[in-house]
Amino acid sequence: MDFENIAKTAKAASLKIADVSSDLKNKALVKIADAIEKNKLQIFEANKKDLQEAEKLVNSGDISLSTFNRLKLDENKMRDMIQGIRDVAKLDDPVNKNLFIRELDQDLVLYKVSCPIGVLGIIFEARPDVIAQISSLAIKSANAVILKGGKESINTNKTILTVINQTLDEIEGFPKNVLQQVFTREDVSEMLKCDNYINLIIPRGGNKLVKYIKENTKIPVLGHADGICHIFVDETADIEMAIKIIVDAKTQYPSACNSVETLLIHENFPDKNKLLAALQLEEIKLESNPESWAFEHGDTTLAFKTVKNINDAIEHINTYGSGHTDSIITTNKDNAEKFMNQVDSAGVYYNASTRFADGFRYGFGAEVGISTNKTHARGPVGLDGLTIYKYKLIGKGHVVKDYVDGTKKFHHKNLS
Amino acid sequence: MDFENIAKTAKAASLKIADVSSDLKNKALVKIADAIEKNKLQIFEANKKDLQEAEKLVNSGDISLSTFNRLKLDENKMRDMIQGIRDVAKLDDPVNKNLFIRELDQDLVLYKVSCPIGVLGIIFEARPDVIAQISSLAIKSANAVILKGGKESINTNKTILTVINQTLDEIEGFPKNVLQQVFTREDVSEMLKCDNYINLIIPRGGNKLVKYIKENTKIPVLGHADGICHIFVDETADIEMAIKIIVDAKTQYPSACNSVETLLIHENFPDKNKLLAALQLEEIKLESNPESWAFEHGDTTLAFKTVKNINDAIEHINTYGSGHTDSIITTNKDNAEKFMNQVDSAGVYYNASTRFADGFRYGFGAEVGISTNKTHARGPVGLDGLTIYKYKLIGKGHVVKDYVDGTKKFHHKNLS
Repeated sequence: MDFENIAKTAKAASLKIADVSSDLKNKALVKIADAIEKNKLQIFEANKKDLQEAEKLVNSGDISLSTFNRLKLDENKMRDMIQGIRDVAKLDDPVNKNLFIRELDQDLVLYKVSCPIGVLGIIFEARPDVIAQISSLAIKSANAVILKGGKESINTNKTILTVINQTLDEIEGFPKNVLQQVFTREDVSEMLKCDNYINLIIPRGGNKLVKYIKENTKIPVLGHADGICHIFVDETADIEMAIKIIVDAKTQYPSACNSVETLLIHENFPDKNKLLAALQLEEIKLESNPESWAFEHGDTTLAFKTVKNINDAIEHINTYGSGHTDSIITTNKDNAEKFMNQVDSAGVYYNASTRFADGFRYGFGAEVGISTNKTHARGPVGLDGLTIYKYKLIGKGHVVKDYVDGTKKFHHKNLS
Repeated sequence: MDFENIAKTAKAASLKIADVSSDLKNKALVKIADAIEKNKLQIFEANKKDLQEAEKLVNSGDISLSTFNRLKLDENKMRDMIQGIRDVAKLDDPVNKNLFIRELDQDLVLYKVSCPIGVLGIIFEARPDVIAQISSLAIKSANAVILKGGKESINTNKTILTVINQTLDEIEGFPKNVLQQVFTREDVSEMLKCDNYINLIIPRGGNKLVKYIKENTKIPVLGHADGICHIFVDETADIEMAIKIIVDAKTQYPSACNSVETLLIHENFPDKNKLLAALQLEEIKLESNPESWAFEHGDTTLAFKTVKNINDAIEHINTYGSGHTDSIITTNKDNAEKFMNQVDSAGVYYNASTRFADGFRYGFGAEVGISTNKTHARGPVGLDGLTIYKYKLIGKGHVVKDYVDGTKKFHHKNLS
């Protein structure tokens, strides 16, 4: 099937799954979890094939050891993957929720109702557990999806999606072709051009992948390329709190997008040297090269800079930051308010580690990704980010003419 | 100033206006309304110049008489324009609203707070009253804006924006350069490329303008190109209600985007001939040419087609429609539910005229535009469509490590 046909098929499936009940969607998710459990040996077998191929690529230097490790599906990852699907089944249904009900006039009632977006294009790299996670989020939010995984995990991805789709095919009333998979680079370029059928692209992977996608499509992209997070240590910061938060934000998981990359210190902060010494004791590599101000290190390197005042700190962040997550450490409430209002980032924190920027930590129960967009969804995105809304208007023969000529008047009364 | 500098200036202004209080914004709006009132003779004078130029273009056939009429600013339009600004001042502030407050753990509280998007690019055609309306919506929602009006209204636009900006310059504490104007086609192509600085483009004008913009930018575009709305007359529809609604939806304002373009009639509807005859009596021109199924007539022409059943009606709409607004006329509640759930449009109506699709009629108090997008904002868009949100997290030295190693646990309790 050529890509356009796949996309058309996805569009048709999206219209069908939009009307599937919560019960049927949750039943499907539980059955998928059971089926993956039952077929896990087959999935491990497929993963072994991928790992054999990948090992050669590690030896030839074509892929990194960390890519190889992400590719590997062990009992723990398998268990987490299956549990993840069961957890999604238990979440509230994000669609068919009344966002408001408003009586425009007698017997003329407007409902703003959440509904799926339509067709999602998901492009992801080595981690094969992503395919099960994204499939379950798509089903829960009633979107059709076209998946393109990394070529290193092709056997694992194929096997997992086959297990999932065989399960769905056996469920009465569940529409066909909600989940489809493509495999080549050519498919990706077709996908990026396919704005007639695909409503949202979600890239899950490194900076380069996300940048490439954002630069090559007119379809809305949900995600973030860079995670250049800052911590500003204000004049009045508590030194112990500053050390604790910076160490957490830099070392707890250095390659995460919400790890801190640049430390800004108020020039009148009295314990600057003590702070820097304490960070070095925790094996944080400090550097003050301006070239690293717009750079995501991904390791325990931390850029630092002394700033004159809070205004300079805010300006630095709004200039060099990526709009992801930035934190102020201070005992001055007014400065904290100013920082949170004027820093233009998805997350603006006060005396807390940047590492809290995460859908599960925020209590969303699921995470679609973290977005630095300024429209649709920003910050950690839960299932709601895969929905939009429609307006249902129910009348009894109401016409606009009556309101234009003054026969009738709107009263716009919100109901429950 | 070249376009990139204009865009940079807008970005800087957007960061400043984001932190301006509701009071100051409302004060600015009232002062703008007063200033336009005070300077209306000067504005009429500028409009006269535009009209003199436009008259030549009408005579030479370069612009239509309806464009000429839209260009003309009379006492009524002036009064409505001034009142519109005063009305926006009275609306609730769409930014700095707490969308939720959630205690993640003791002393660790997450606020989801609405905030402006940043920099808007607004491209509009002949109507010069748009410049005052958009300026007031931008101020209210705390966004900076770059405006590009039609060249036919250049003198009127320049004069109105000068009056507005002189007023803003005199208000203490109100940031500079929130509203800027550009004039050339080259500026438009620069604007469409400027995704580093511009966060949302809103085209206000005809189908061709919107299509051109959507096809030539990676910046999110809020709007709709086509308004191909349908009415489906079901088997059990009440004939009188059907006539009343269709006449309203087609003739009350035929060039509006929410006017009906295609009538679908169930083949078992017993009064089909009576219905068509009644519509013709109201000077509706019926036609059954399949070529007009994806066509916005903009006049009293109405395409019609007989369909076998509701499924065919839904499929027709999802194939040929533009996702704007579609209505079913029926006495069968189940069919109405099915129609509203399965038609993939921003507005899905049951026994009501499609002409209700409008921000004021929905009770939004303002309308930014009508969107057929599947992300961010859909349907009639009020001030909320010019906002996004940020997450403020306030802790007391909280770090993620404690939650990963099990020392602490999230309790995710929603407050107020």
